[in-house]
Amino acid sequence: MTQPDIHLYTAATMNGYKPVIFLEEAGVPYGLTFIDLSKQEQKAPDYLKLNPNGKIPTIVDRDEGRPIFESGAILWHLANKYGKFLSDDPVARSETLQWLFFQVGHVGPMMGQAMYFQRIAAPNGHEEPFSIKRYVDESRRLLEVLDTRLAGRDFLVDDYSIADMAVYPWARAYPWARVGIDGLANLKGWFDRIDARPAVRKALTIPKAQPAFWGDADESEFLKENAARFASDVKTA
Amino acid sequence: MTQPDIHLYTAATMNGYKPVIFLEEAGVPYGLTFIDLSKQEQKAPDYLKLNPNGKIPTIVDRDEGRPIFESGAILWHLANKYGKFLSDDPVARSETLQWLFFQVGHVGPMMGQAMYFQRIAAPNGHEEPFSIKRYVDESRRLLEVLDTRLAGRDFLVDDYSIADMAVYPWARAYPWARVGIDGLANLKGWFDRIDARPAVRKALTIPKAQPAFWGDADESEFLKENAARFASDVKTA
Repeated sequence: MTQPDIHLYTAATMNGYKPVIFLEEAGVPYGLTFIDLSKQEQKAPDYLKLNPNGKIPTIVDRDEGRPIFESGAILWHLANKYGKFLSDDPVARSETLQWLFFQVGHVGPMMGQAMYFQRIAAPNGHEEPFSIKRYVDESRRLLEVLDTRLAGRDFLVDDYSIADMAVYPWARAYPWARVGIDGLANLKGWFDRIDARPAVRKALTIPKAQPAFWGDADESEFLKENAARFASDVKTA
Repeated sequence: MTQPDIHLYTAATMNGYKPVIFLEEAGVPYGLTFIDLSKQEQKAPDYLKLNPNGKIPTIVDRDEGRPIFESGAILWHLANKYGKFLSDDPVARSETLQWLFFQVGHVGPMMGQAMYFQRIAAPNGHEEPFSIKRYVDESRRLLEVLDTRLAGRDFLVDDYSIADMAVYPWARAYPWARVGIDGLANLKGWFDRIDARPAVRKALTIPKAQPAFWGDADESEFLKENAARFASDVKTA
């Protein structure tokens, strides 16, 4: 039995879903290792050889015999390798990369901080209202930028692409970040279009979806399950 | 008189220096517009047509008749267009993009938050010790990742590349972020190599260098000059 060309190391986080969505959408076979963040497996010496930053996700391209880290670079690599979800047109390719960097440099870190201060720091005894307001306000502004971009468009750049796959897990988790989307009809329509994709629905079960991310489940169970990880995060914060 | 192919909109910030460094290193002629952040020129309707996120830098590639936003995407575009500071080898290209995303997704946002809380929020009446510690600690961890990567290497990926140009303005401003570099000899050596490059030295005067960023000047003058911008930032935070 041959091993698949792509092996993915991931976990149930916003960045962790991105390559799963691509691989499920593209129908590419892949091997899978779940990294247990509560056990700090992402900091293990063998894993750091694959991902020097000690984060998930990482892929190993067995075909090329090398690891690739950073979810944006992973999506770019997979899209080019399989010729899917990235246009051949130079202008569309450039726009896709621009929105990919917009996600990685803004939507991810800022919504991530909004999540951290409200969902990790606060329940563990660190209420930080100034920081919460900073990141919730900035996250809302970023969702407004996306809403403006999506006016008259079905997707961020022409057809559904890796730019959508990168932004979706973060923006769609607005309930988890406690960022409102009132009045952002273009964004809502885009959520609906991507929510309806069978490959996306499947991807959110691999790794197991955290319903609380999407605002449609009781959050207490999620908080309980992840108590060890949260405590460890706060300790090192 | 013909206009240069590239027109750059920028300001004296860490991201704002990146394309200036590339253009000076490559010896590419370019037009230049300074965006006055204290006057919120980056939010003007005409500018938002070029950069939907209302940030600097932006380039307009007149040759191709289109704007490009996001500093990582700008560096990728320029490196490909001019065939400089980016290898032709597929593996080296991929590694360059990985470290570029590492900068955009981690070094920039985290050192940016360390700078914000210490240099903007605190002097304006918002002391946030928990947040300061969070971002200073994470910034130090990221500089350690860079130090490990640079062991036995002159630059992040083979020859001097756009990955170095992206990381340098942020990491080199460690005094401004009040992040220590004790024990990080590989990182210090890399700073020295890049500090010594004439094009980099020139770039840091276009836009005018802020000596306080690099820790070699009195900071009070800088804080005074930028009081309006800082107050406006805190108000919206």
